[in-house]
Amino acid sequence: MRASYPDDARLAVEAALSESFLPCESRYAGVVCEAMRYSLLSGGKRFRPVLVLLGAELVGLDWDQVLPTACAIEYIHTYSLIHDDLPAIDNDDMRRAKPSCHIAFGEDVAILAGDALFAEAFRLIGAEQSPDRPDLAVRVVREIAEASGLGGMVGGQVVDVLSAKTQVDAAKLDFIHRHKTGKLITASVKAGAILGDGSEELLAVLERYGDRLGLAFQITDDILDLTGDEAVLGKPVGSDEERFKATFPGVYGLEEAAKIARAAADEAKRSLNGLPGDTGRLRDMADFVCERKR
Amino acid sequence: MRASYPDDARLAVEAALSESFLPCESRYAGVVCEAMRYSLLSGGKRFRPVLVLLGAELVGLDWDQVLPTACAIEYIHTYSLIHDDLPAIDNDDMRRAKPSCHIAFGEDVAILAGDALFAEAFRLIGAEQSPDRPDLAVRVVREIAEASGLGGMVGGQVVDVLSAKTQVDAAKLDFIHRHKTGKLITASVKAGAILGDGSEELLAVLERYGDRLGLAFQITDDILDLTGDEAVLGKPVGSDEERFKATFPGVYGLEEAAKIARAAADEAKRSLNGLPGDTGRLRDMADFVCERKR
Repeated sequence: MRASYPDDARLAVEAALSESFLPCESRYAGVVCEAMRYSLLSGGKRFRPVLVLLGAELVGLDWDQVLPTACAIEYIHTYSLIHDDLPAIDNDDMRRAKPSCHIAFGEDVAILAGDALFAEAFRLIGAEQSPDRPDLAVRVVREIAEASGLGGMVGGQVVDVLSAKTQVDAAKLDFIHRHKTGKLITASVKAGAILGDGSEELLAVLERYGDRLGLAFQITDDILDLTGDEAVLGKPVGSDEERFKATFPGVYGLEEAAKIARAAADEAKRSLNGLPGDTGRLRDMADFVCERKR
Repeated sequence: MRASYPDDARLAVEAALSESFLPCESRYAGVVCEAMRYSLLSGGKRFRPVLVLLGAELVGLDWDQVLPTACAIEYIHTYSLIHDDLPAIDNDDMRRAKPSCHIAFGEDVAILAGDALFAEAFRLIGAEQSPDRPDLAVRVVREIAEASGLGGMVGGQVVDVLSAKTQVDAAKLDFIHRHKTGKLITASVKAGAILGDGSEELLAVLERYGDRLGLAFQITDDILDLTGDEAVLGKPVGSDEERFKATFPGVYGLEEAAKIARAAADEAKRSLNGLPGDTGRLRDMADFVCERKR
């Protein structure tokens, strides 16, 4: 049986993302605003912001209270995709079945659209979303900044880029995935719980959950890159292999990689054992991550 | 008589910047960390972080309380220079008398070093620098994010890039400079005062001061690009003209541009009239900005 994706949360995120932009027409800088919208509003699972909502749910906080932060994390994810696709980095012409941002708008605009998305993300987090508990907002700023920077997403991406066309051992592969993908996924589920004043014990559990979920997510990504349906994926199959990127199937083989992903998802679920509250939707996410086709 | 630059503040910033980095050796991602240090620790006036300290001084707050935020703003300024110098944007090979970041480290590392500096900036601001007043830290996050994004630095840079090789009228030139340079300068002096719980009246004055100071700063930059001493500037003279960039001397002529800069600096000083506290160092900054040779 396929695990169900929390589409109610996805739709709430989608609506909030659309509303988070002022109309672009009124600015001199309209073209970069269009480029930001183009990349941001191109569908997708909205995996990270959905996790923010599920983290909030777990501590009984309304989605409304965390939607700005959820949007902010999707802004950051989108900026990272725009920059990753650039000719100097992964040189990908297609993303989500459309021309990449730099193909559609030019490389200069794409670089700056990414930069602007990153800035706007912190503007959203810094908006007065929880005026009575600014300490929680500051903590979220710190979590997300750490997850995005040298000790997180960018750090992992650098090692990935510099390791292309070299042999990567299991330890380095683990470092890349844990940083490039895992840290922001972990920060997402934690951010929702932090804004709801979740306990340190709960946050430690979610740290473990996010780390394992992120690993399962990334391995499945690598597997789909080799075996997926191009029409469903929206990008060419085999592009990682072509670029000799460090992947789990490359290091362990397809079958073993799938087993590692399943084991990581199971660990993610197990980490939730004993938590108060309804953890059913977070468990479903772990199953979904392994079973997804795109 | 030359206005004196607040070198005590500059040295405090320089020391804090050096200490703000963990050793790079211990990471897989060492090379991007080296690239960040290379661009960040290459001297300069430290104009923006010095303004943070002067803003704090004005409301009686110790420098120690604002140094993380001061460093953060210099991180953001540095990231913007790294990205501006990229081949797809200004294509500048030299910066501060050294090869630009992408020349020294490659374009991929330079893009990611800029991204990481931006993230680390918000990590610094989100550090527990004022645990008793997190509301002020959140406000600073918002100010700096707005000043860096679509409605600030990146917005101005986009219009500048897209206007290259076209005729730019006075209104568009004003938009470019006010956003690309003015907003972050304004956010700097305000950030210091915000962290010291400065009144809304004071912040409104500093907004005006920063806007005028930023204009004078940018016009002088444009003038130095045409008339300065390459050895002192650390970059080739005439590079704006060669790229047909929108500049005040280009639109108004050199002499008139210098007059506009002087008038803006005088307005900056006048805006401080009637403020309590010692505004002498902020007034000196306005004079310095017009008289500087680099």
